[in-house]
Amino acid sequence: MPHINLSNEYPGIRSLFFYRPETATPLNGLVQAMLHNPHPTLSAGERELIATYVSRLNTCFYCCNIHGAIARHQLGGNGEIVEQMLADPETAPISEKLKALLKIAAKVQSGGKNVLPADIDLARAEGATDLEIHDAVLIAAAFCMYNRYVDGLATWQPDNPGMYDQMGEQRAREGYLTPPAKLVIGH
Amino acid sequence: MPHINLSNEYPGIRSLFFYRPETATPLNGLVQAMLHNPHPTLSAGERELIATYVSRLNTCFYCCNIHGAIARHQLGGNGEIVEQMLADPETAPISEKLKALLKIAAKVQSGGKNVLPADIDLARAEGATDLEIHDAVLIAAAFCMYNRYVDGLATWQPDNPGMYDQMGEQRAREGYLTPPAKLVIGH
Repeated sequence: MPHINLSNEYPGIRSLFFYRPETATPLNGLVQAMLHNPHPTLSAGERELIATYVSRLNTCFYCCNIHGAIARHQLGGNGEIVEQMLADPETAPISEKLKALLKIAAKVQSGGKNVLPADIDLARAEGATDLEIHDAVLIAAAFCMYNRYVDGLATWQPDNPGMYDQMGEQRAREGYLTPPAKLVIGH
Repeated sequence: MPHINLSNEYPGIRSLFFYRPETATPLNGLVQAMLHNPHPTLSAGERELIATYVSRLNTCFYCCNIHGAIARHQLGGNGEIVEQMLADPETAPISEKLKALLKIAAKVQSGGKNVLPADIDLARAEGATDLEIHDAVLIAAAFCMYNRYVDGLATWQPDNPGMYDQMGEQRAREGYLTPPAKLVIGH
């Protein structure tokens, strides 16, 4: 049960967006800009993988499942990549550049000062641009916020995989700014 | 030296806002909504104290100093409250309600799941509303992002207290959405 009375039945961060529209607007605008809007070099799927990975490191069930589902849809329905990345990024079928960006993301998750010049050098050696490094740091930092927001208020986090799949399909297609669709599977 | 080439001489998060305007807009909109816009019960000074406290817990020099300066200006120039709150919230001259909200903020900083019903009960016993609890959690979570963003890219963080005072005075007066004023003290 959520720590406060949210007066709605939406899951996870959506329940907080309905509770507090004033902060929902920039919070939604940020995730849209980071993960969904066109990017010169990183695909939406790659950016969603970074968000999913950091959410797993922060043990946020809702964010890991919803962004994992969005990543799967953005990657053409390939859930194996998401599962393998979560199990071990090093052996997952992703680029060496993305592996280096995930290493930076893990450093950010444990604390901003833990990102060392050697981590940046490694990413550059794998072809990462300054913009990609910037965005990986910001995505990782932002999910340290979203994850704490969702868990810190003890929001409802359904355990039905079908719900995450439906929500993920909608977000992959529409982005983050549209209202949540009515879920076919109830709770 | 920053980890990436930011092509500007602004300090801290402002250098990142100039580097990446697409994400600066929602990041600035969020801090404006959380800390500066009118609030039914929490003063801007109280909200800035929460931001300052979490930034100290995350050892983010830039954010702790700039929000400490903004808090001081929002509190009518009383820097003693800021210093005493940073030294020990329990003995600082702040309300028992704010002390309870700072305890929740510290739990969020260490991880969202660390916020327990007992922490919420304590805040409620001191008169905190659901909205105040929500906002304390969100401010704490958001500064876990801003702090990691600023430190994760190794931004320039001046050590001149006069610079933070000038920047803090401007933000307390104008909010977060205006361009940075030219600093009188150079670097």
